[in-house]
Amino acid sequence: MTSQINPPPRLLMGPGPVDADPRVLRAMAAPLVGQFDPFMTDTMTETMGLWREVWRTANEQTFLVDGTSRAGIEAALVSLLEPGDDVVVPSFGRFGQLLAEISERAGARVHLVEAEWGTVVDPDRVAEVVGQVRPRVVAVVHGDTSTTMAQPLEALGQIARDHDALLYVDATATLGGNVFETDAWGIDVATAGLQKCLGGPSGSAPVTLSERAAARIRSRRHVEAGIRADDDAGAAGRRIASNYLDLAQIMDYWGPRRLNHHTEATSMLYAARECARLIGAEGVGARAARHARHGAAMVAGLRGLGLETFGDDRFRMNNVVAVRIPDRLRADPGGGDAVRAALLEDFGIEIGTSFGPLHGQVWRVGVMGTGARRDAVLATLAGLEHVLRRAGAVVPAGGGVDAALAAYDTPADAVSAGLEGDR
Amino acid sequence: MTSQINPPPRLLMGPGPVDADPRVLRAMAAPLVGQFDPFMTDTMTETMGLWREVWRTANEQTFLVDGTSRAGIEAALVSLLEPGDDVVVPSFGRFGQLLAEISERAGARVHLVEAEWGTVVDPDRVAEVVGQVRPRVVAVVHGDTSTTMAQPLEALGQIARDHDALLYVDATATLGGNVFETDAWGIDVATAGLQKCLGGPSGSAPVTLSERAAARIRSRRHVEAGIRADDDAGAAGRRIASNYLDLAQIMDYWGPRRLNHHTEATSMLYAARECARLIGAEGVGARAARHARHGAAMVAGLRGLGLETFGDDRFRMNNVVAVRIPDRLRADPGGGDAVRAALLEDFGIEIGTSFGPLHGQVWRVGVMGTGARRDAVLATLAGLEHVLRRAGAVVPAGGGVDAALAAYDTPADAVSAGLEGDR
Repeated sequence: MTSQINPPPRLLMGPGPVDADPRVLRAMAAPLVGQFDPFMTDTMTETMGLWREVWRTANEQTFLVDGTSRAGIEAALVSLLEPGDDVVVPSFGRFGQLLAEISERAGARVHLVEAEWGTVVDPDRVAEVVGQVRPRVVAVVHGDTSTTMAQPLEALGQIARDHDALLYVDATATLGGNVFETDAWGIDVATAGLQKCLGGPSGSAPVTLSERAAARIRSRRHVEAGIRADDDAGAAGRRIASNYLDLAQIMDYWGPRRLNHHTEATSMLYAARECARLIGAEGVGARAARHARHGAAMVAGLRGLGLETFGDDRFRMNNVVAVRIPDRLRADPGGGDAVRAALLEDFGIEIGTSFGPLHGQVWRVGVMGTGARRDAVLATLAGLEHVLRRAGAVVPAGGGVDAALAAYDTPADAVSAGLEGDR
Repeated sequence: MTSQINPPPRLLMGPGPVDADPRVLRAMAAPLVGQFDPFMTDTMTETMGLWREVWRTANEQTFLVDGTSRAGIEAALVSLLEPGDDVVVPSFGRFGQLLAEISERAGARVHLVEAEWGTVVDPDRVAEVVGQVRPRVVAVVHGDTSTTMAQPLEALGQIARDHDALLYVDATATLGGNVFETDAWGIDVATAGLQKCLGGPSGSAPVTLSERAAARIRSRRHVEAGIRADDDAGAAGRRIASNYLDLAQIMDYWGPRRLNHHTEATSMLYAARECARLIGAEGVGARAARHARHGAAMVAGLRGLGLETFGDDRFRMNNVVAVRIPDRLRADPGGGDAVRAALLEDFGIEIGTSFGPLHGQVWRVGVMGTGARRDAVLATLAGLEHVLRRAGAVVPAGGGVDAALAAYDTPADAVSAGLEGDR
């Protein structure tokens, strides 16, 4: 007979998913309650408040979509965009391409503003295209794990407002580990997933909507036949193409009317609540600073091993760094993967491969959630040193660990990237 | 500071969600592994096999969609149907209406074949409409909890095959607690959610696809730009309107190619695996028989309390029964809800309200998952007796418990509904 699940011990230091906080995993083991139990509806309302703190927003419409981060992205785009709408997508990696792809499937006309992988998009170019196109939406990824770069967002918020467009941001890879200011940066809609800096498992997508965005979505509200009341005449706007990801209906479900939609994924709600609760207890700013500190130590350590980092230092996310696979290993097409496999097998440590033009060129190393801690950073560097050497690379003995320790000895105020703008 | 989640003790005897099996909840607390860790991909493959047993199918394409049962429904319909396609929807309750609504949003032309609530649809009427319309898909709910009726499916499978249509079935409310025969009944696509008879929390949608259905969906396969290989030219068929719920991409993710799509909701995967594992250990047939036995005891007990059941006995699902709210209580518009609230507050037991034309007319009582057990049935009947009497209804002392106990004393072979067709 098949046994209980019994995963092998792992330290997940890739670009995500990473290890969930054990307290989040335990929260999911709490018993269920009914969908409209007062405890359930109170918990939903409480969870909205906890996430407002994480998002740094006063947005009433701050809730969860029941699916992975990708469900949150699609819910935002399909609810904002209707066939024929224009959307401008600044793109600097694989997940920018994904925003374009999802927008296309929603029937929108996509205007890409692309930057080379390893850089970010010049806001002036975005302003120019937005000025020409006058799109309904500007859709952008904050941190694109495919390249490890983070797009500065403040300028984009201004550009969107100047041209009466809504700014949508995919914050999956950055929220909870980098400064993220929904309101101060003028972001209208942002979505995330729990499996990166937020310390939870994939499967719940936190979302926040400005009043402007909520009004746009409400203009497309069509309550489904089975639960429609007499005063639920459909709004004038075109019905949203998805029922499951229809944010107008999901707002009604989370709002005071509690209109039945999906059956809330209660265990994932408990997980998302616990993630936000733990972030609030740590402090949103302190958590970004922690990610910056341990992320910087990892960068220093990888360089100390003689590895070359990929991409523009000025725009690197706190929580993930890409390093070029040494030439000697890259000569063999499977060379990079063999090193990753050895690290997993001999040390139980996972680091990431990469996508598209970077596939076979770089590894990606994540430092996020509970993994943003000293022993995880040092153990990863020590393990990597050994597997690199055994694979034939020339690596300085202790070079990674020593460099990381030196970085940890650097006063915290020298590691300021994570604090910038944190008020 | 906000505390850990601490739900009040509840016994969930409504139409679902119901209490999850504690072993399923604990499985979710297992640590995560990486998305392409050999343990993860092996677990995904193993989980596919466990679910084939639950679905009673040999379908290779048997996997999970990361969302609630509604995500599974929409994934099936949006992947099968394209704008302009015809779909015939036999409907006998709210969830039939939902299939029509989701199909409409996918751009399909919907042909409803409706039956009065409390009955099911005559297959001859379905055959007639299918013969006229020649639809791409026949889409039907197996058990519609809004009315507690279950549509016999075998005839519909034959009708679909006779007219070269694909049969889609929403088995959310019946799977794991009623006989369900994917292959023997000629079902092409079926979807479910964990939160009813399957004993888990909402948030993962098991799906199974026949080879005929998989071929239809593959004909619409368009790998997204960010991960497309040179030989991934798009299929001839129209691209599926959703990216997240695109079953062509989800098949590639679960299949040997392991093509990156969403980030699998690992904790919900563990939950879904554990649900299927426990069902396999109990035996699919034994589990349906258990639901039939305890469901019959609940029906007998409710009648023993003097309550009148709703709907046609011949088609009642094993796991949920609706009873008319006594006239004396129905005179007050909130009378039915006050009794439910008292049962929740004084006994910690939840039973369900109802939708649409039945709202305020009936309560719905569920007997499913771990709730399909003797003490849960008797405690519900005892609690209901007391709150009914305190609300002013005339109820025979001990009438519910006595009738249920008498039903339990009836030999099991007299309660055969759950076993019929179980091979």
